[in-house]
Amino acid sequence: MDSINLEAQGASDATRAVAEALKECRKTGIRKITFSPGRYDFHPAQAGERYLYVSNNDEGLKRIAFDLREVNDLEIDGGGAEFVFHGYLCPFVVEKSSRITLRNFSIDFARTFHSEGRIVSVDAEGMELSFSENFPYEIRQGILVFTEGSKNLKEQTTVSSGEVLFPYSSLLEFDVKKRETAFMVKDFWAPAGLPARQLASGHIKLVYPGIEGTPGNILVFGAARRDCPGLVISDSKDVVLEGIQLLHCGGMGVIAQCSRNIYLNQLKVVPAFKRGRMVSITADATHFTNCSGKITLQDCRFENQKDDAVNIHGIYTGISRKLSEECLEVRWMHPQQFGLDFIVPGVELEFVRAHSLITYAALEVKSVLPINKEFVQVTFTQPLPMGLVEGDVLACIQDNHPEVLISGCRFRGNRARGILLGSRGKILIENNVFQTAGTAILLEGDGRFWFEQGGVRDLTIRGNTFDNCNYGIWGEGVIAVSSGIEEKERMKIRYHQNILIEKNIFRQFDSSPILSVYSVSHLIYRDNQEEQSTAYPAMRAPGPRFKMSDSDDIQIMR
Amino acid sequence: MDSINLEAQGASDATRAVAEALKECRKTGIRKITFSPGRYDFHPAQAGERYLYVSNNDEGLKRIAFDLREVNDLEIDGGGAEFVFHGYLCPFVVEKSSRITLRNFSIDFARTFHSEGRIVSVDAEGMELSFSENFPYEIRQGILVFTEGSKNLKEQTTVSSGEVLFPYSSLLEFDVKKRETAFMVKDFWAPAGLPARQLASGHIKLVYPGIEGTPGNILVFGAARRDCPGLVISDSKDVVLEGIQLLHCGGMGVIAQCSRNIYLNQLKVVPAFKRGRMVSITADATHFTNCSGKITLQDCRFENQKDDAVNIHGIYTGISRKLSEECLEVRWMHPQQFGLDFIVPGVELEFVRAHSLITYAALEVKSVLPINKEFVQVTFTQPLPMGLVEGDVLACIQDNHPEVLISGCRFRGNRARGILLGSRGKILIENNVFQTAGTAILLEGDGRFWFEQGGVRDLTIRGNTFDNCNYGIWGEGVIAVSSGIEEKERMKIRYHQNILIEKNIFRQFDSSPILSVYSVSHLIYRDNQEEQSTAYPAMRAPGPRFKMSDSDDIQIMR
Repeated sequence: MDSINLEAQGASDATRAVAEALKECRKTGIRKITFSPGRYDFHPAQAGERYLYVSNNDEGLKRIAFDLREVNDLEIDGGGAEFVFHGYLCPFVVEKSSRITLRNFSIDFARTFHSEGRIVSVDAEGMELSFSENFPYEIRQGILVFTEGSKNLKEQTTVSSGEVLFPYSSLLEFDVKKRETAFMVKDFWAPAGLPARQLASGHIKLVYPGIEGTPGNILVFGAARRDCPGLVISDSKDVVLEGIQLLHCGGMGVIAQCSRNIYLNQLKVVPAFKRGRMVSITADATHFTNCSGKITLQDCRFENQKDDAVNIHGIYTGISRKLSEECLEVRWMHPQQFGLDFIVPGVELEFVRAHSLITYAALEVKSVLPINKEFVQVTFTQPLPMGLVEGDVLACIQDNHPEVLISGCRFRGNRARGILLGSRGKILIENNVFQTAGTAILLEGDGRFWFEQGGVRDLTIRGNTFDNCNYGIWGEGVIAVSSGIEEKERMKIRYHQNILIEKNIFRQFDSSPILSVYSVSHLIYRDNQEEQSTAYPAMRAPGPRFKMSDSDDIQIMR
Repeated sequence: MDSINLEAQGASDATRAVAEALKECRKTGIRKITFSPGRYDFHPAQAGERYLYVSNNDEGLKRIAFDLREVNDLEIDGGGAEFVFHGYLCPFVVEKSSRITLRNFSIDFARTFHSEGRIVSVDAEGMELSFSENFPYEIRQGILVFTEGSKNLKEQTTVSSGEVLFPYSSLLEFDVKKRETAFMVKDFWAPAGLPARQLASGHIKLVYPGIEGTPGNILVFGAARRDCPGLVISDSKDVVLEGIQLLHCGGMGVIAQCSRNIYLNQLKVVPAFKRGRMVSITADATHFTNCSGKITLQDCRFENQKDDAVNIHGIYTGISRKLSEECLEVRWMHPQQFGLDFIVPGVELEFVRAHSLITYAALEVKSVLPINKEFVQVTFTQPLPMGLVEGDVLACIQDNHPEVLISGCRFRGNRARGILLGSRGKILIENNVFQTAGTAILLEGDGRFWFEQGGVRDLTIRGNTFDNCNYGIWGEGVIAVSSGIEEKERMKIRYHQNILIEKNIFRQFDSSPILSVYSVSHLIYRDNQEEQSTAYPAMRAPGPRFKMSDSDDIQIMR
């Protein structure tokens, strides 16, 4: 037998059948699982589980539908099948595996982790909203709570109910006509939920003085947590995702960490408009942390997700204490990086000033003593560098600078930005179309807030169309640097180097910057076409198209 | 060296020193750790962590201060030291260990997991409350949130903040003069938090139409979760806890599961009145699940905790599906029992009807295939019994029926009941004083709600004083049965057998029952003294002192 084929079985739970098929592949060496066309439902009850640390998502004990752990040479071909997940279940996890191909299926959830209400009216007290049956809710003791739809009939007790709920922590308005974040709209925060009243009309009144919104538009209640990312790739290599339609998941779409060679072809992160949804997934469409080899995104679409489309970066860990001449206490600084134990004997770490991002030393790790997911004690093969201070940060030197190709992709409708970049590998961003609310391509990196390592060395941005980007509040400049370098330090470092921007179309509805950069050396801007449009009102005060400071060897040829 | 002694080091974190001392004991075979008098602070940052399933508390990845895993023959003598814990940290975990003695220290937390407000006034909209600096709070977008006290200055983002908060899910009024739950008060529920407004006076207005309370009394915001129980004993034997004062923890006080021979001597669960607190700990004082050997509670005090003082029971797991003639899918039915994997090859399980608690068969387990923390597939050595239906429940026969001695203990001020009993071992409850808001001694057991196995076979209740119990709503009868047996089934089973009640004092402020039992056989009530008091208003309608049904061989000798 060359492959295992699974058949759709009506509404029954396909979770065990998939688990059995994966077990059979392990046992027999079969390298392919195929699906007959149709819909397959997956419930958490019968899914295996493991505690997972997933970068930039929320850690936890997770139920997993397709659990590919320590699997080599396997292809899963959905044959166009629809995979529909229920509740808190992670669709795919590929961990410590290699040569894995996943193709030709869609991922959706029966009930979304976010919720969407239609804005009826706004006044000083708050907002009147109506919800479709897709977003069931209750008002409990005056608080708006999103549910699975079935009334919880259990007696209330002093213990946790185990009920499945969908907590929210932020609100964002989407334009129903343009199907994108509303023009210049900002996030409203609701870290503890919000008070609300049920109205006789069937609508609700959300109590939130100062909230803004346009009647008819959609107010999205952003998921408070990122528990169920779509496809997790961890400590793996040679992973191909092809022809996957990701309609929804409760976290990032594709999150790869500590992995090598990831190829995404025709990945479509798109909202199920036909099912009455404005938003696709609840966080970044794709995210790559401490990856290496080559990352390719080819002919993908990223629409209406609740955060950036692509983010490629390393991790800065913090020096929390010097324990001896060779030994440091090291701390993971961002709770969503906890547990990523890439600091192992033999790894070379660079020592970096948090406020300037200047690298001042590099040492090899001799041994590691873990304290918990947040702290480790690291002993180096040589004495610690002079001038080391607590608060400096550390990043991996090897296995952290993938080559990147992003080509033929479309970016639109989502919150925040298009591509966030940080890799010293060769990067080519070519023939894409960006219609992003914020900056289209952002050169990031900081050691004090997100602790994401960046710094490009060879970046080409060629043949792209930047079509009326920056209609939202998330950035300044279509292509921009926002690395966390203190202003007074910016002259001392060239964090980003060798950037070629050519043959692109920049279509702008106002006079905000095409380029806004600092701490850069060797940047060439040439053969680009600049167009003016009236797609949105020009509200920003006119300013320079090219904002540059603390940089050298910049050639702007218009 | 016979022992390791630790010295108090001011306010510095003692967590690493304790971890190092425990490591040293393992390495060298030293069998004793002592503490010099003083205060020792423990913070979660430097604590090790493990994922723990703790019966009737909340599972999770937990930081642990005193982590005794796979330790034999160790005594920790606090010498009167005060151990003060900060944030989400479990004080003591004893797991897979034997011959462990912990003695002579107090356990407290810098910030309690519950919060207490003084009732200023009550009206149709809700309640005005004032909070001392012991219970810091903020009102965020209209919702009352309890904090650690330091203002969170982090920028709000779409990701979880990692901030330490103290969520609540229930409200309960305490009488400030009597220092106990207010007379006949009921729980108010707040599963999603509550709306509130800050008032210019410094008080807050809690929005909760219908809430009741007396100005001057304390409203306790009960902790929503039980993440940090005080002393966890799991899969261990011969554990002695002696002279421990438990002022606070975020869960149950002592929770023992799947363990043998537990001796509690002079354990004091008491509130820190001097630190301005009404409530001691946030859940049951002590709880024993699937334990065996002997459980002894000698000269203990249980005051003002947020739930029962003692609960001793087994676990009923559910039959969720018949997979073959020998194989069942078994489900843990209560989320706070998940992960307790006591079903292992060789164990004998009894088959029980959930609605009648009648045992109809017993079989030995041959093999177990775990699916996740909630489901396992169990294969038996013989074919499944005839007449088995899904929904029936299973319980361990061996290692689940400890002998119990509870003597010289005082029970007062807490929410709910005194002792909940379920063990077929010999039980003696002697020379205790009960001033409980609910039933003093409750014979439990049910297979449909809490899934706690009970059923006594040899219970003596002797020489106790029942001093004006049942001044609250939690039960009927000073000694009562509330097993989950459907009314029409009660005649068919004698779930509790051989009960002797003698030489006790029953002091009653009204004419509510001394005894309220059903499905019992062989009960003798003799030589008891019954007194009438005026301690509380007699509000209940007069009724029989002895309510009995569906029982036989009952001798009431007054």
